[in-house]
Amino acid sequence: MSEFQNIGLIGRTGSDSAVLSLKRLMAFLEQEGYAVVLEKDTATAVSANKARVSSKEKLGELCDLVIVVGGDGSLLAAARALAKFSVPLLGINRGRLGFLTDITPDEVERKVGEVLAGKYMAESRFLLDMSVARGGKPVDRGTALNDVVLHPGEFIRMIEFDLYIDGQFVYTQRSDGLIISTPTGSTAYALSGGGPIMHPKLDAIVLVPLNPHTLSSRPIVVEGSSEFKIIVGGQNITKPYVTCDGHDQIITEPGDVIRIHKKPHRLTLVHPLEHNFYETCRSKLGWAE
Amino acid sequence: MSEFQNIGLIGRTGSDSAVLSLKRLMAFLEQEGYAVVLEKDTATAVSANKARVSSKEKLGELCDLVIVVGGDGSLLAAARALAKFSVPLLGINRGRLGFLTDITPDEVERKVGEVLAGKYMAESRFLLDMSVARGGKPVDRGTALNDVVLHPGEFIRMIEFDLYIDGQFVYTQRSDGLIISTPTGSTAYALSGGGPIMHPKLDAIVLVPLNPHTLSSRPIVVEGSSEFKIIVGGQNITKPYVTCDGHDQIITEPGDVIRIHKKPHRLTLVHPLEHNFYETCRSKLGWAE
Amino acid sequence: MSEFQNIGLIGRTGSDSAVLSLKRLMAFLEQEGYAVVLEKDTATAVSANKARVSSKEKLGELCDLVIVVGGDGSLLAAARALAKFSVPLLGINRGRLGFLTDITPDEVERKVGEVLAGKYMAESRFLLDMSVARGGKPVDRGTALNDVVLHPGEFIRMIEFDLYIDGQFVYTQRSDGLIISTPTGSTAYALSGGGPIMHPKLDAIVLVPLNPHTLSSRPIVVEGSSEFKIIVGGQNITKPYVTCDGHDQIITEPGDVIRIHKKPHRLTLVHPLEHNFYETCRSKLGWAE
Amino acid sequence: MSEFQNIGLIGRTGSDSAVLSLKRLMAFLEQEGYAVVLEKDTATAVSANKARVSSKEKLGELCDLVIVVGGDGSLLAAARALAKFSVPLLGINRGRLGFLTDITPDEVERKVGEVLAGKYMAESRFLLDMSVARGGKPVDRGTALNDVVLHPGEFIRMIEFDLYIDGQFVYTQRSDGLIISTPTGSTAYALSGGGPIMHPKLDAIVLVPLNPHTLSSRPIVVEGSSEFKIIVGGQNITKPYVTCDGHDQIITEPGDVIRIHKKPHRLTLVHPLEHNFYETCRSKLGWAE
Repeated sequence: MSEFQNIGLIGRTGSDSAVLSLKRLMAFLEQEGYAVVLEKDTATAVSANKARVSSKEKLGELCDLVIVVGGDGSLLAAARALAKFSVPLLGINRGRLGFLTDITPDEVERKVGEVLAGKYMAESRFLLDMSVARGGKPVDRGTALNDVVLHPGEFIRMIEFDLYIDGQFVYTQRSDGLIISTPTGSTAYALSGGGPIMHPKLDAIVLVPLNPHTLSSRPIVVEGSSEFKIIVGGQNITKPYVTCDGHDQIITEPGDVIRIHKKPHRLTLVHPLEHNFYETCRSKLGWAE
Repeated sequence: MSEFQNIGLIGRTGSDSAVLSLKRLMAFLEQEGYAVVLEKDTATAVSANKARVSSKEKLGELCDLVIVVGGDGSLLAAARALAKFSVPLLGINRGRLGFLTDITPDEVERKVGEVLAGKYMAESRFLLDMSVARGGKPVDRGTALNDVVLHPGEFIRMIEFDLYIDGQFVYTQRSDGLIISTPTGSTAYALSGGGPIMHPKLDAIVLVPLNPHTLSSRPIVVEGSSEFKIIVGGQNITKPYVTCDGHDQIITEPGDVIRIHKKPHRLTLVHPLEHNFYETCRSKLGWAE
Repeated sequence: MSEFQNIGLIGRTGSDSAVLSLKRLMAFLEQEGYAVVLEKDTATAVSANKARVSSKEKLGELCDLVIVVGGDGSLLAAARALAKFSVPLLGINRGRLGFLTDITPDEVERKVGEVLAGKYMAESRFLLDMSVARGGKPVDRGTALNDVVLHPGEFIRMIEFDLYIDGQFVYTQRSDGLIISTPTGSTAYALSGGGPIMHPKLDAIVLVPLNPHTLSSRPIVVEGSSEFKIIVGGQNITKPYVTCDGHDQIITEPGDVIRIHKKPHRLTLVHPLEHNFYETCRSKLGWAE
Repeated sequence: MSEFQNIGLIGRTGSDSAVLSLKRLMAFLEQEGYAVVLEKDTATAVSANKARVSSKEKLGELCDLVIVVGGDGSLLAAARALAKFSVPLLGINRGRLGFLTDITPDEVERKVGEVLAGKYMAESRFLLDMSVARGGKPVDRGTALNDVVLHPGEFIRMIEFDLYIDGQFVYTQRSDGLIISTPTGSTAYALSGGGPIMHPKLDAIVLVPLNPHTLSSRPIVVEGSSEFKIIVGGQNITKPYVTCDGHDQIITEPGDVIRIHKKPHRLTLVHPLEHNFYETCRSKLGWAE
């Protein structure tokens, strides 16, 4: 009997193709005798009136596996919501790219069937914890699987901030901002910003400056256990924003202290057996001419 | 007798050091017998009660030369305001960088004296004209000496747009935006964005994509006479902003058409005789180790 | 009657597919009544015993049009050999890339037929003249359509040299070398080295430093009429090489003076009517996802 | 009593300033009662007739600490020679940069005195082992503290090779070569090639493609324990070279297999107590404006 009996489903809402794949997947799972729990908005999208329904967070308690149908963005959102549970995630690609969601829609039954039959590889990914303090008091916090980004917000103006790593002063930077990325995020926004690709198994974090004023500012890769502190500069005309995976904007004030470090809980990503990071790179980045 | 008799003065307001240089410059000019006209806000800043005062634009009619005391930003603002006049500009550096303002504060009398005595070189720089049309009707326009920038505005989300040059389709781009820069702007924001340095005499415009999704997107340099058309994508969650020299944000709507081309009027920049573009690069960019 | 009556043919030797295309092209041209002249090595490759044969250079005198079957490398070689003549070139792609050779093998008859019928666009490209002087005396020279490259030769060691443009000192650079590229070459090696794409019509030259020691060294774009002087440093352990379009290595000595400027003669490239530079970029660089 | 009693000295030969520092250092060490052993060529350079002399390798057995006076290149050479011993290295800077040699000449007595008195921090750096096999048989091998570099050798031609990491195929690359760099090497050649800065404590290796043909090829950071295999392409016109820290060129043949992995032995670098990696970056890379 499969170790996965209770299967949660989350779909990208507002996508007809995701709804199609969800229905096909539900039919398959029910026929195979699995208990399916639908995330609330997903249930509405597929008009599943009789299905068992739950909040996204609650899926973490109810399920042995959560399948996400959508793009990497959908999987990122699920990962942030389920970060404190140990439920593994499996992604079915209905979006544009797909570094995280590596099953294509037309192989759903076969691949999901194999995974449920125990033919899979599990991969552990770490997340980042971000908090903002003002006058020494916490004002907000967030979780990121890909990256924490400091950016100028509404105005296209350079921002200024001080960066400390493990208590050591690194630099005062003037730039369009800074990406603090996990290996998972290294093939996303950090790559567009000029950062290196980092293998998912690497225990490291990369800092990618965005359009830095000083041309010798370069991406820096440090140990995954590093503690980052950013102090928002007092001279900024604008109030920089901080986001986690491009969501949940927090507007900072001069002097705010942003702290970032690895979360204790890790995410388990489930892949079909033949999954291979470099093959994904070749196909997604066009390395094979 | 000097060809420059009526000298306009514009200073960076809110800068004590600029005020000091302005007072020193006024004293020098009056002692030498030149007629000085102060820009309104500048007059307030230096508490020049008895001075002749004018609006920034009006200086273009009243003066033979306008001296700007501040950073490159102050000179950019003056250039945009005076674009339609033929009055030349001279910059005295009181800011951070100084590709445009190349006289240092402690050599004011000597260098300005030389320029007024006819020992100078004049350099012609072109500006960009930018307009936004919605449903076929013009909604706003702007002028830039450095660059026109399309950027995501408040949200850190990739934007999508179509680019046409001289009527030819170039690409549909997904990125953080696009810098359209003159040679003058090529050592400013475009350089931070990864663009090439362009010699001020070059009749060319560079397009620098900001953190493009497609890694093979690269800066493109085209003839200065090129006509650019950008169509704002309909799928954008956010409404991209357009700015000229980092000022005057215009918020676009899906389908808006942004047109950019060289302005017919050019700016005349006045430099001391020993001015040398490559020396400025060496000193500002740290090329001399 | 076509303005092109005498057609020269040059093929990439050692390529079976080029030989196939050449034979097909010869058959077509003879059937249509054109006079064909084969370049010597090409004649051997296609075993054309009865054909009219000539040296590559001589084709410039005998022909109204020269068709090159091969890759961009073959067209570059033909362009250098025929630089002093005014005969236009047309390229049929049998190589890997194809920025210069834009007719595909299976449309040979149709496209070449159209060109010969007068349906074509002609494009003018400039070439570079490079000379090396030692102790004030010329020792060697070369011609490039793409680029002149200074590189370390056998040893992987940084080289040092002084660069002057139009008599003005630019910098002393320590790097793996320098690419001086035309717009034509800007989509070739210069692009791999981090240079911008330049539109073929632009009258400009780009300097791309190769892995420079100083991180703020960036590509510089200057006017096409610029005169470049490079003085090979005396401290180099190795003797840097200079090449034109990657060919004809010249080994320099410390103190050698390398001069580069635009050649007076220009190359005429012939394209089918629908040729479009940006479409070539989209297809060759993978801009269309 | 100091844990360091027998001090080995290696100096950059051919450098007058290094000789000066060596003599000053010898005088200091002898006065303080330490036993000094000079590397052979160093002894000749300082004309130390009565000194105890040894080969570079032998210093690893005779000494408790080896002090290198020179640039980073001198320290790299010492590290490669002493890799199999456990003797720690201390660097005194007499070269151009100085990421590894962080004591300046005028603070020799004070800083070396502190280190000998036990006031130091020890840092562990890993090295790379590189071997070349032809037809299944080993033909050559080398050791690198900074990097192993595959490059085209004499001719400026793209080379082609296949890369495997931990047995997984990564890509067939066409480029000017590949840098495989340790964190130590990440601030050297790999940085000029566009690689990220890696903190010295990070257990990771970065691969930096040199001017790759495919524009989406980017630096890749993988775990320090990774095993690399490069198969030299059969289509190369040239025979690529492999070097370790820029030395010991090995000329490869088509089909040669290059294997690279971390060495079991690690190097111990000794620094004065106030040593700080980020401060070195700020000062060497010009981050502090």
